[in-house]
This record gives sequence, C-alpha cells and structure tokens, in this order.
Amino acid sequence: MTEHATPAPFATVILAAGKGTRMKSDTHKVLHPIAGRPMLSHLLASVEALGPVAEVIVVGHGREQIEKAVAERGARVATQEPQLGTGHAVQQAEASLEGFEGDILILYGDVPMVPTETMARMLERLHAEDAPAVVVLGFRPPVPGAYGRVIADETGVISKMVEAKDATSEEYAVTLCNSGLMAVRSADLWPLLARVGNDNAADEYYLVDIVNLAQADGRKSAVIETEAWEVAGVNSRAELAGVEAEWQGRRRAQAMADGVTLVAPETVWFAYDTVVGRDVTIEQNVVFAPGVTVADGAVIRAFTHLEKAEIGAGALIGPYARLRPGAKIGTKAHIGNFVEVKNVTVGEGAKANHLTYLGDGEVGAGANIGAGTIFCNYDGFLKYRTIVGEGAFIGSNSALVAPVTIGKGAIVAAGAVVTKDVAPEALALVRPNQEEKPGWATRFRARMSERKKSGG
Amino acid sequence: MTEHATPAPFATVILAAGKGTRMKSDTHKVLHPIAGRPMLSHLLASVEALGPVAEVIVVGHGREQIEKAVAERGARVATQEPQLGTGHAVQQAEASLEGFEGDILILYGDVPMVPTETMARMLERLHAEDAPAVVVLGFRPPVPGAYGRVIADETGVISKMVEAKDATSEEYAVTLCNSGLMAVRSADLWPLLARVGNDNAADEYYLVDIVNLAQADGRKSAVIETEAWEVAGVNSRAELAGVEAEWQGRRRAQAMADGVTLVAPETVWFAYDTVVGRDVTIEQNVVFAPGVTVADGAVIRAFTHLEKAEIGAGALIGPYARLRPGAKIGTKAHIGNFVEVKNVTVGEGAKANHLTYLGDGEVGAGANIGAGTIFCNYDGFLKYRTIVGEGAFIGSNSALVAPVTIGKGAIVAAGAVVTKDVAPEALALVRPNQEEKPGWATRFRARMSERKKSGG
Amino acid sequence: MTEHATPAPFATVILAAGKGTRMKSDTHKVLHPIAGRPMLSHLLASVEALGPVAEVIVVGHGREQIEKAVAERGARVATQEPQLGTGHAVQQAEASLEGFEGDILILYGDVPMVPTETMARMLERLHAEDAPAVVVLGFRPPVPGAYGRVIADETGVISKMVEAKDATSEEYAVTLCNSGLMAVRSADLWPLLARVGNDNAADEYYLVDIVNLAQADGRKSAVIETEAWEVAGVNSRAELAGVEAEWQGRRRAQAMADGVTLVAPETVWFAYDTVVGRDVTIEQNVVFAPGVTVADGAVIRAFTHLEKAEIGAGALIGPYARLRPGAKIGTKAHIGNFVEVKNVTVGEGAKANHLTYLGDGEVGAGANIGAGTIFCNYDGFLKYRTIVGEGAFIGSNSALVAPVTIGKGAIVAAGAVVTKDVAPEALALVRPNQEEKPGWATRFRARMSERKKSGG
Repeated sequence: MTEHATPAPFATVILAAGKGTRMKSDTHKVLHPIAGRPMLSHLLASVEALGPVAEVIVVGHGREQIEKAVAERGARVATQEPQLGTGHAVQQAEASLEGFEGDILILYGDVPMVPTETMARMLERLHAEDAPAVVVLGFRPPVPGAYGRVIADETGVISKMVEAKDATSEEYAVTLCNSGLMAVRSADLWPLLARVGNDNAADEYYLVDIVNLAQADGRKSAVIETEAWEVAGVNSRAELAGVEAEWQGRRRAQAMADGVTLVAPETVWFAYDTVVGRDVTIEQNVVFAPGVTVADGAVIRAFTHLEKAEIGAGALIGPYARLRPGAKIGTKAHIGNFVEVKNVTVGEGAKANHLTYLGDGEVGAGANIGAGTIFCNYDGFLKYRTIVGEGAFIGSNSALVAPVTIGKGAIVAAGAVVTKDVAPEALALVRPNQEEKPGWATRFRARMSERKKSGG
Repeated sequence: MTEHATPAPFATVILAAGKGTRMKSDTHKVLHPIAGRPMLSHLLASVEALGPVAEVIVVGHGREQIEKAVAERGARVATQEPQLGTGHAVQQAEASLEGFEGDILILYGDVPMVPTETMARMLERLHAEDAPAVVVLGFRPPVPGAYGRVIADETGVISKMVEAKDATSEEYAVTLCNSGLMAVRSADLWPLLARVGNDNAADEYYLVDIVNLAQADGRKSAVIETEAWEVAGVNSRAELAGVEAEWQGRRRAQAMADGVTLVAPETVWFAYDTVVGRDVTIEQNVVFAPGVTVADGAVIRAFTHLEKAEIGAGALIGPYARLRPGAKIGTKAHIGNFVEVKNVTVGEGAKANHLTYLGDGEVGAGANIGAGTIFCNYDGFLKYRTIVGEGAFIGSNSALVAPVTIGKGAIVAAGAVVTKDVAPEALALVRPNQEEKPGWATRFRARMSERKKSGG
Repeated sequence: MTEHATPAPFATVILAAGKGTRMKSDTHKVLHPIAGRPMLSHLLASVEALGPVAEVIVVGHGREQIEKAVAERGARVATQEPQLGTGHAVQQAEASLEGFEGDILILYGDVPMVPTETMARMLERLHAEDAPAVVVLGFRPPVPGAYGRVIADETGVISKMVEAKDATSEEYAVTLCNSGLMAVRSADLWPLLARVGNDNAADEYYLVDIVNLAQADGRKSAVIETEAWEVAGVNSRAELAGVEAEWQGRRRAQAMADGVTLVAPETVWFAYDTVVGRDVTIEQNVVFAPGVTVADGAVIRAFTHLEKAEIGAGALIGPYARLRPGAKIGTKAHIGNFVEVKNVTVGEGAKANHLTYLGDGEVGAGANIGAGTIFCNYDGFLKYRTIVGEGAFIGSNSALVAPVTIGKGAIVAAGAVVTKDVAPEALALVRPNQEEKPGWATRFRARMSERKKSGG
C-alpha cells in the first residue's frame, strides 16, 4: 500500500532490543497496544505506506513473540546479543540486508507514533541538493534536559551532535534535540558503523557517532524537525498510557472536525481503524475496539462497546449495547440496553431493545425481538444459526434454539422455547397451562415466619 | 415566567443566519444541544425569564428547522437572504417588530449560555441616568487577539469601538472586547441601522457601527462587562464540546456545594433541568438526560442512565440501571444492575435488582421482582400494563404478559409465563414437568466428539 | 499491626469537633469516604500501624455516629461542648488519657491522608537530640495565603509561629506553613494547654499557642516538613472529591509502575485495599469497591464493577460484569457481559458469558453457563445454594431453582426451569410441546390494524 513516492528504494531497521524492564511485563515492550494495535504494528503500518524494500527488526529477548507478531508482514528479525548500544544494534541488521542498496530508515519500536509523512520527509531530505550523509530527526521537548542537542544552522545543516552532559552552556541552551531516528544511505551506513567506537562511560557503540564520523570525513549531515509527540518514547506503562491519551485526544479532535458530535470527548475511545460518518452522535463512555464502521447519522448512546461491527446509517445503538465481531446493524435498526450482538446481521429497521443475546444468525428487516430473548447458538461443541424472518415478532423472554428458522411475519408468543422451525405468518406457542393455588402464599409466609422464629 | 422586572418593555432579536459550515451537520447549528437542550432553547429560556414582548430569530438557511423548534414558544422567524453582515441581519427583524416600541436585546443563537442576569444588567444599563444610546456587552478573553476592542472609561462610557486590525498599539493592549451582544431602544436602533454602510473589505453591514454613528450624533454608548465563558461562541463541534464541558463543570460544582457527593465529578453529566436533593451520592459515570428529579438521600450507583424519571428519598439505583421516561421510583426502593424501567411506578421499598425489564405498569410497595423478570408489554401493535400488587413476589426468570394483574401478596413461581391474572395471596405456577434422561450427556459428547473428528 | 517502632509509647488525639457545615450532610464530616473508606478510618489505619497506646477522638455533634464507627477499634470518644478552639478541643481528651505518660500525636479527622511514615517522623523528631517541646508538621501550599507561617532555621528549630495577618512582610514571604498537626509529650502538653488563653478576636483557645508558651519557658520547638497533599483538609464535597482525585491519581501511577496496563488511567477507580497482580490489563471505566484481589495476567474489561471479589490468574472479566461480595472467579474463567456474580465460586476455566445472574453457589471447573441463566436463590425469606458440577452445560435462558444440584457433566436443555437435582451425565429437559397455529399472525395483524383504524 504505497501511498507516497520515495526518492530511492529504501529499507527500514527497527530497533527493539531494549529489555523493557520498567514495563514489568511478559509481553515484549513493542507489542503492547496503543489504540488497539501493538506499537510495532503502528510503526510498520506507517513505514509500509512508503513501500520499503525490506523491514528488519532487531530484538534482544523475546524473539519468538516478535517473529509471531510480524510473520504475516514478511518482516525479518535479527538478534542483538549481547546488547552493546544503538550503533551495535543497527549493525546486527546488516546481514539481513545483504545485497540491498538504497536508503535505510532507522526507527525504534518503542517510538511508535512517527507518521508516514515524517518518514517521507526524512528520506526526501537525504536526497536534497546538499546531499547530507545522515538525516537526523530532531524535536523540541518541553524540557530538553538530558537529551542530546543538535547544533545546526537555519537550513538544518548540522555542525555538531552533542550529549547534554558534554555541552557548553551555549550548546545546552539549544532546544533542538536528537530523537535518535535517522535516514542514511546503505553505502554510507555500514562503513560508518564499522568505525564507531565504544570509548565512553558505558562502553557502548552509539549510533549518533556516525554523524560526527561523517563530518570528520568532510561530509555534512542535516536535521529535520518534527513535533515532540511524534517521537514520544514508551518505556513504562505510564508512558504507554500517555501516548494512548495523546493519540486519543488527536483522534477525537479529528472526529469532531469531521462532523461527529462527541458529548464528552474525553470519554470516547477510538481504535486505530475506526471509521465514523458525518452527523453521527457519540454519547458518553463509548469504546471502539478495532474494526468498527459507523455510517452517517447513527447515534451511539452512552456505555456502548463495539468491536468488528458495522453500524448502518441512522441506526440507534445503546445505551449499554455490546456489538461483537460480525455484528452488522442495518439502516435505522435499533439495538438497545443490555443487548449483545455477535455474528448477526440485523436488517433495516429491526429492533432488539432490551436484555437480549443475538448470536450467530440473521434478523430480517422490520423484525422485533422482545425483551429477554436469547439465541441459543451453542450446544457445548458447535455453534448454530438462528434465522428470524422479515417482520417477525419474537415475544419476550423467548429462547430460540438454533438451528432454527422463524418465518417471515411469524409470531412467537412470549416465554417460548422454540426448537422447531416456525412457518411464515404462523403463531408459535410453547407454554404450559397456568395453575393457581389460592391462599398458598399466605400459608407459605406463615410457615416461613414460624421457621425463622424457631431459628430454622 | 417573568422573574425579573425590566425597566421597559423589550423584545429580543436573535441572530442565527450563519452557515455553520464548520459544524458539518444537516442540523442547524443553533439546534445542536448542550446539556440535553438545543442552544437556541437555552437562549430563549434565559431571555423568557425577563418576559420579552416579542422574540425574532433571524435565519439564513434551515428556516423550517428553526420554525419547528420554536413553534411552541410563539417566537417569530425572519429570513436574511443574502447574508450581508450583522447589521443587515438585525434589520431583517424590523418588519417582524413593526409597531413595537421599547428596548431591543440583540443576541446570537451560537452564543447560547448568556444568563438571564446578564441580559437584565444590559437592559438596566440602557436606562441608567446617563442614558446610553447603545449598551454593549464586553468581556475579557484569555487572548484578546482578533476581537474588537471596547475603549471605555471607568464608568463604562465608550469612547471608541475598534477592530483589532485597525487598533493603535495602545488600543490593541486593551483587554476589554466586544461580544457583539447589544441593547438598544427601538427608536434608536432602526434609524441607526439605516445609516450603517458597507464600505469595508468584506462589503458587509456591521452592527457595531451603530455605536460610532451614535457617537457622531453626540450620543454616548456604554459597555458592561461579563465573564468570558458566558459569551463563548459555538462554531464547531469542538467548541460545542467545550461549552458543554464548561457548563458541566459549573453544574457539578454547584451540586457539590448543595450537598451532593460526586465520587468522580468529571464523570457525572447533568442535564439542564436535573434536580438533585441533599445528601445524595452519585457514583462514577452517571448520565442524566433531561427531566430527572432525585430526592434526598438517594444513592445513584455507577454506570446509571436516567431520563424523565423520579427517584424517591433514600432509593438505591444501579449500578447499571437505566431509568427511562415515566419511571417513578418510590422511597427506599431498589433498582439494580441491568434493570430497565420505563413508564412504571415502583412503590416504596420495592425491589427489582437484576436483569429485569419493567415496562408500562405498577409495582406495589414492598414487592420483590426476581432476577430476569420481563414485563411483556408489547404485542407489536399496542402496549399494555402489568400491575404487581403490594408485597407480591415474582419468581426469577418470569414473563408477565400484559395486560395482567398479580394480586397483593401473591407469589409467582420461578420461570412462569403468566398470561392470566393471579389472585391476591395465591401461588401461580406455569411449569412443565422436569424430565431426566440418564447418561444422555455422555452419549451426546461421544457423538459430538466423533463428529468433530470426522470433520463433521 | 505495629509495623514501625516508635521511640516511646504514644497516644493519638484526633480532633473531629468541627460542624462541617459546608458539607451539608447528615453524615458526620469525618465519616465521608475516600477510596471506599471513611476519612476517619484512613487516619486510624495509618496511626494504628505505629501501635498507639490509646486513640481519643474529640467530637462536637454526631457523637453517636463516631462511636458506632470506631466501636470495633476500641478508640475512645470525648466531647467538646461548647467548641472554644483547637487548644480547648485537645484539652477535652485529657480525662480519656488519664494516667497515660508518653507522646501525644495530635491529628485532625478532616485531614485524612497523613501517611504512617509522616506520623513516625514526627514522633522521631520529638526524641531527637535537641529534644524539642513540640514538633509541628509543616508544609508548603501552592498559595500560602492565610495559613499560619512557621519561622524556623535550617535544622527545623522554630523561632516563631505567626498568623498570616500578624506577620511582617518578611515573615509573610515565608512559604513554610503550619498544618496544625503536632507531637508533644504528655508531660508538656497538659500544663502548656492549661496556660493557653483566649485573648484574641475569636475568643478561642488556639493549640498553636503552646509553641510560643514553651519558647517563653526557654524551650525550643521544631518543625518537620511534608508534602502539601498529605495534609489536605476536607471541608466541602468539592474538597472531598479533590482528595479522592489526588489519591486515585497516585494509586493509578503505582499500579502502572507495578506492571498493570491501564488503557485510560483516569477512568479506573481503586479502593483503599485493592490488590492487583502483574501483567493485568484494566480497560476503560472499571470501578473497584473495597475488598478486591486480582491475580496475575487477568483482564478486566471495560465497564466492570467489582466488590469483595477474587479474580484468578488469567481470568477474563467483563465488559459489563458485576462481581459482588463473595464472587471467587477461578483461573482462566470467563465472566462476560451483563453478568452478575454474588457469593459464588466459579471453577477454573468455567464460563458465564452473557446476561446471567449467579447468586449463592458453586460452578465447577470447565462448566458452561448459557446466556440468560438465572440462579433462583431467594424465596422471599431465605437464600439457597445452587451447585453446578464440573463440566456441566446449562442451556440458555434456564432458571435453576435453589436448592438444587446439577451433577458433573450433566446437560440442562435450553429454557428449563430446574427444580429437582440432575444426576451426573444426565440430560434434564423441562419443556412443553411447541404448538403452531398456521396463518394466525396474518389474522392477528389484520384484526389489530382494524382496531387501530377504528380508534380502538
């Protein structure tokens, strides 16, 4: 899905070898989700929009988790062991990229929100007239503090990359910082990396040194700048929540700009792929898991949870509705409170308003599903389908035992357990006679009171 | 509902001819709701508390929507077509106010939260001893930026109204800005408006020019000041959400000051007309749609949704309760989780605690409605009532098929489908015999496992 | 539960005689809850970790409420009537502490969040080498404003306690303020208090005067400093909500630091005693009432409410699950949407996924409870237990009328009302025959349409 043209073929190297200790998790750090999708997948999706020739992910521990996560994408996984710094990490990708000639975009698995646009700008800058050896992505954090500073002129040409601790007071006052992301030609990258040393306090090989090494060869590098939130890193669950919040805030603003009413925007959570039409109203406390599409004019009421579901135009969903995978709700249909829908197509104008489970089947247009209806779709081994015909009326508190078909226009009387198909336009009754025992309640209460008194 | 005396008869002109393009909505901008009520209705309710002689709403497109919205109030609707500025817009109301002599209060449909009190202050200022020609409502925004400045002395007498772009640096530094709201005598307004020209970049007739025209005649105007949030304008869904949030924040603070505990105030949403008593506790995530009254000492638990409902003193509602229009919950009654109540009166101390739908009817004092009970109130055409007598006990998972009456003190056994009235103190049983097929489950599982193995 | 050693035996005096007028509540101010526990209980729990010899609570009105609240703890209650200031209030505790010799820690019932650690630091400072007469707890509020200032040297030795209104401009500029909390030896406290006068504007006896009286005797006092939030006072429901929010914010941060994912931290509410394991995910809008333990790897989905419940490792709870007291959910068990569990043990891997009420009983490992199942546990007088055996399958929309036992591996067919025990491996069927009336629906609709037409 190449949406942009890049100036040359490129590959990406994504560093993901950090231990992620502060996450305190058995799940690899870069697989923790934001907006319903693992961090690494966000990054891969953004880079794939540019059509990379190859993707190499450099991991430390947890190789299996990463391999499984990227298997479908065809990304390659390289291992860095032991972990001797970012420069050393990038070197581990060299074998995976043997034979590749072109640009290399260096990303970080725990810096997941870099947009495609910014990646494209990095690659374009690499091919600008002044042909920099390295393109560094810079940003201006609210507090530059310990970040490495990028000393550059107005055109972005870098005179020096300097660690905060080594900076002069003038350099320290510079607010442009190094995000760590870089773009470099393969022909430059590998030779430069081979020359990076580890003569520093941590005995590590730092990627950033390639800029100064190139400069020593008389080759300039360049910085381009982006907003700080794009390069926010995730090293703890608190930072994970912080990036999630930032993403949600931007997505909510976008939804409102697109003509969606959010009554309380801070209580609506979108997924990375949510699609919402115009003049949709979303009330308080609505959660979109991945895979949801909402057509124009629909109303999603409070306390609704949606996942892999389609909502038709003008439909009314909730409050307290839960739509699960495969729920397809037709135009102007109503799904009401305490109703769960899974793998069911609900026809135009049909209604299931109260305390209902619709699982595996179809509800025809204009049908009415009474309160407390259950589609009994499972026998402990297999799942079966329930078909309710157009215009049918299912009386309250009924159980439809699948596989079963209720014909068009049929009526099921309240409280029925329906095990056999019902013909179109027929009435189905499944109901014992009502017996009455006069005065029984009086006697029962007397007996129970007695029992309570006697300590029974 | 005149609550204030105004110094003279007055009419209001509400400008609502803006296109509202940024809303991206088929609904007229001024009909988008805040706190459960359209913006225009907020404004009309505030102005009506002062007893206006007439209300004229000046619209561009969407006249039908506005007419329908204000039909009951008797407000008049005038059309501005084409739209040639605010001065021109006010002029379109002249015909609708033919014969009216008095004060005219000029408001904006998309500036909805102006309180009655502020409107009253504007009209009073117009009749102060210095008899200003025009009273302008001023405010001090956090960033005055592009707002027109009001240059005035300490008593509010205006020396100049100036656009930000035309301001001297001294004038630009003035923080008092023009909200656009004005009060003017009819005898002054129409002649002044007739003299307003459109010799400006936009070729528009600006209302604000009447101040400078009056001044050219030797007549002073005056400004009164109000808080910025009262004159916040709504031009986008984000601004709509912003005004909603501001309103909610103030309403929550008021509730707490009145002796209501809000465990997490930011997650309670009130409607414009919510009434809550003293020593009420409202837990997290409670939504009040319009028309709700909660009496002293009630507890509204988390995840509750209420609309047009009355809650009695000491009642316990939720969590996950949904009270719909016509729910009247008695003193100390309990409505529990996943319970929906619509158009039902629930007597003192009665309980419906679990997974229940009570629709159309009555539940007597002290009655107990078992888990999973459904009032079957609808046959696809009409709705019928269910009456449960005082002290009756409805066994779990019962369906009461309306119209039906369960007598006082009667007991309905669990799982019944009740279609005939039950006498007071009687026991009703609707239940087939229980059959048992020994070992059937073993055989079933063997069969199903076999089928799964054989790929069936 | 003495967790710290204190330098000497100590007693605590907790002042709680304020009227709490701004709370507008019939509940005593110090009994309003934060994080699910009354303010006073927070304070008592913190002080009890240090093993006090005695606790005296000084009350004005509402003595009965306080006595009832602390009855189990053995705290003593003294009355201050009339209320003549903080010094006078502490004096009222003297009789209750007759014979006690040691340190006295003076706390305030409406300053509830003081940690044990800070209390310990106060007592330790009292026994430092310089042996201060009084130890004052100081703090630096964002706006010192009207707080009394503590004028002290770098070692905390106080030269003067001064009210803001009496302060010189130099003193007023001091940001260290008096929280009111103090530690004093009993041998010093009672004589000093006896000398405190009420020669001031309010005719009150101020506790703070003991510092200046000691100084007049040539004895120095000392201040130790703590963070402002620890000594936040609660005088209104807004301040109650503010302290709750502060507490929740810190608790959420702690949870994330401990390896819990909070998708939207601001929408998760913990109780004072919530225990959550590692690699637990908590989605949006989850409320923990007191008494909940969640084991490692469990997932608590959105809109879930938990109280006095245990969640096993890897269990999946919600969305929209309500676990009530006595719910014990086994390892990898699933409790799904609109399901309520009360006083039921759910075995490993068992599932109850939809619209179900499980009340009083047991669900065996691997059992499957169909949608809409109700445990009918109550007959209006007593509650009975339902036992579902291991691996049993309960068909949808069934009512199990307790006391009843469903044997291991048994199957209950959908829609059954089970009143008799079911043998292991048996099938239970409780179901009338299904009748069909062909064409009935067509005739019904014709009749109803006719009736509607005729205005019936």
